[in-house]
Amino acid sequence: MTKQHFLDSFFNPESVAIVGASRNPLNFNFYLVGNLVKLGFSGRIYPVNPNADEILGMKAYASVKDIEDGIDLVVSAVPARMTLDIMKECVDKKVKCVVLVSGGFSEGGAQGDKMQDEIASLLKRNGIRAIGPNALSPINSLNNLAISFFPLEKLIGGGVSFIFQSGLYEPRLKWLFSDYHLGISKLIDLGNKMDINEVDALEYLADDPDTKVIAIHLESVKGDGRRFVQLLKNTSEKKPVVVLKSGRTAAGAKAAASHTGSMARGSDAVFDAMLKQSGVIRAQTIEDFLDFAKAFEFLSPPTGNRIAIGSMSGGEGVLAIDMCQREGFTMAKAEYTTFDRLKSILPPWETPLNPFDLGVCVQFHPFLDVYKKFLESMVGDKNVDGVVVGLPPIGILFESEGAHKPFLLGKEKKKPVVLWTHAVDESLNALVEKLEWEGVPVYPSAERAIKALSVVYKYKLMHERAS
Amino acid sequence: MTKQHFLDSFFNPESVAIVGASRNPLNFNFYLVGNLVKLGFSGRIYPVNPNADEILGMKAYASVKDIEDGIDLVVSAVPARMTLDIMKECVDKKVKCVVLVSGGFSEGGAQGDKMQDEIASLLKRNGIRAIGPNALSPINSLNNLAISFFPLEKLIGGGVSFIFQSGLYEPRLKWLFSDYHLGISKLIDLGNKMDINEVDALEYLADDPDTKVIAIHLESVKGDGRRFVQLLKNTSEKKPVVVLKSGRTAAGAKAAASHTGSMARGSDAVFDAMLKQSGVIRAQTIEDFLDFAKAFEFLSPPTGNRIAIGSMSGGEGVLAIDMCQREGFTMAKAEYTTFDRLKSILPPWETPLNPFDLGVCVQFHPFLDVYKKFLESMVGDKNVDGVVVGLPPIGILFESEGAHKPFLLGKEKKKPVVLWTHAVDESLNALVEKLEWEGVPVYPSAERAIKALSVVYKYKLMHERAS
Repeated sequence: MTKQHFLDSFFNPESVAIVGASRNPLNFNFYLVGNLVKLGFSGRIYPVNPNADEILGMKAYASVKDIEDGIDLVVSAVPARMTLDIMKECVDKKVKCVVLVSGGFSEGGAQGDKMQDEIASLLKRNGIRAIGPNALSPINSLNNLAISFFPLEKLIGGGVSFIFQSGLYEPRLKWLFSDYHLGISKLIDLGNKMDINEVDALEYLADDPDTKVIAIHLESVKGDGRRFVQLLKNTSEKKPVVVLKSGRTAAGAKAAASHTGSMARGSDAVFDAMLKQSGVIRAQTIEDFLDFAKAFEFLSPPTGNRIAIGSMSGGEGVLAIDMCQREGFTMAKAEYTTFDRLKSILPPWETPLNPFDLGVCVQFHPFLDVYKKFLESMVGDKNVDGVVVGLPPIGILFESEGAHKPFLLGKEKKKPVVLWTHAVDESLNALVEKLEWEGVPVYPSAERAIKALSVVYKYKLMHERAS
Repeated sequence: MTKQHFLDSFFNPESVAIVGASRNPLNFNFYLVGNLVKLGFSGRIYPVNPNADEILGMKAYASVKDIEDGIDLVVSAVPARMTLDIMKECVDKKVKCVVLVSGGFSEGGAQGDKMQDEIASLLKRNGIRAIGPNALSPINSLNNLAISFFPLEKLIGGGVSFIFQSGLYEPRLKWLFSDYHLGISKLIDLGNKMDINEVDALEYLADDPDTKVIAIHLESVKGDGRRFVQLLKNTSEKKPVVVLKSGRTAAGAKAAASHTGSMARGSDAVFDAMLKQSGVIRAQTIEDFLDFAKAFEFLSPPTGNRIAIGSMSGGEGVLAIDMCQREGFTMAKAEYTTFDRLKSILPPWETPLNPFDLGVCVQFHPFLDVYKKFLESMVGDKNVDGVVVGLPPIGILFESEGAHKPFLLGKEKKKPVVLWTHAVDESLNALVEKLEWEGVPVYPSAERAIKALSVVYKYKLMHERAS
């Protein structure tokens, strides 16, 4: 039996106390408790607020010490200057895990720095591990634990686990779970990294069986740099790791230092070289970062670089090819039998098979037939390693029972099928949701779909070469 | 009085006949008439279909020749092989403008090529001008004329006019007018460019008083190359021109040739150099293309390169700075008085003014106060040339009367304010719609907001230097 990593207690507490819980929905602290209730956190919840008797129907406690039972995790969201006292209560209560949500510590000038140091040494002396301060953590979809300042309707479980250095994700968390349909296993926000840092988090997620993909946002490395690089290397041999490093420019690094109190070491070029050696995938923007995470979660890697494109307009096909070329893909040359299989949906004139102009075909044949034949043929074609397809802007066509099934063929045959759409119609949104629920990713443009697929292929190549 | 450009008759016809009109909503041709009716096209509509008596409550004609009145514009959507006969009827009817929607001509092999040539020479002999074939055109928001294969609910008028080489825009047209909130004046899709090409279209839009920005999608140049370059140069001195050139790679160019029957001349590098000399802005992806068009439509150019950033999370601020640096912006150093003005919304510790962490401030002060003070201060600050702000993920905060007003300050003071958001909540979507209606653009990430603002600045610089 392997020893449990200490971070497991943060993600799987049986009881959580929220110090600084609020009854006012206009106050961020309201959602620290509100989300746990709304989402149905599987453990016990103890709101702590000396000025309240009851919060969201639960008894409110004046202090952590007043709670009758033992507490696995204390989330502290009181002002910085009051935090040391709360921590002393945690020591008395024999708490072993704390999350410090509040800001105003090392990122808030000399006085904040001093407060943070005092807390750090108190906790260290007493064997208490801490996330933060200045961190909203953790999230675990498996037990509906979510410490967040913004109201969440639901979590969607999945294979992606995130390490964030800061609340970068917070404004888009709800969107990730709804319109973007990302399946998240765990999320940890490190904040000022007073104690727990990227090395701990990566160590834990590397061995977490529920984590299929690790996506890391970093502004600086605070832990042991060599150990971190080695860990990235070892981890990315087991599962894909995507890294978004911000604070890349001098001005960015300075700002990063001031908002989490951590200074970036070394230049961006050094960092980039280090990432390349580690076999991880680097994202340049937050859109790429999330797009790539979704691709790794949903797609099996293409076995080669030959891609088939199907689009609703020839123009989109051309953009798609340009992107394929840029990302190291080539246009698949379909098998001869594929031509025969497509015959029944072709327009009455000669037309290239790749990129395939679905938009022309549907002028002469029923929509569903065109999509079905195209997907069946390309997924079944031995000369095609991946299929990228644009959805039509009318979703109502796919509302009939099983009409979406051809899009799932890639899943069955372990050949990646990636879609794109721009549509706003409700039935199409429902189709997209259904497909993503089944693990077929849908991106907002051909270019983004191809780029996302390409990193899955690049990851495969890197690790084939390495092994 | 200047002579009217011949394309004006295409965009402002008093009567339009749709040949090949369909009564079946599952047939694309249905929407050729359906959209005109739904949108309330201001001219007369004549459906032509020998197998129908009535289409959408209007009398259907067996032939163009049967229409009692004169016809300004004939839209032909019958199969390629029947098109020549329809054109002969147009000659008899003394029609001067036709749009050939159908495909199967020069992009459809030797036979299609021959049919296209026959039609071209017939039309030329009779002084008939033609858009297409293989083109969905035109759209004019001013008179609700829209020839499209997909159902449209509404057009939103605005300052952007598009030239497309192909139906690239079709799958996202509805989205452009709804979730993306782009204001479009005119749109022309050139298709195979049998007669009318990019030179004609640019010539027309350059002098069109309703067109403030011209966005051109090209796969090839079919008109006089020198004349086109000169025209781009002259036009971009008067109004911004954004170009998306696809078919950039060898494979892409080949595909472009096959789907509109036009061969690209010269390499992408030559094209790129040509664009740079012309003072136009080149977009690399379709997302950039549309983002840039929206920026030019909505924003006054920043007078300098000093940008103020406000974000809901420090992490987003860092990403924003990196992007600012990459795009040639610097971080504004606020005036001393701005610090005083912001005092009332600061957290109880020292915090940088730029990027400004709105997310920390709202933990201590009311949301609306924080946004209002920040926007007032930065828009009023002489050291700030542009402001980029992230919206919070909760729109309900801005539902009170006039709460959105501070975002409009930039409009009043002619200082660009650009927003970003990731939210999915309905009240936030309503806020975004309200703001974009007032001309304040909202992008899906800080990076895209900054990139869009940067091209408005680059355009200004290019043309300052030139003049």
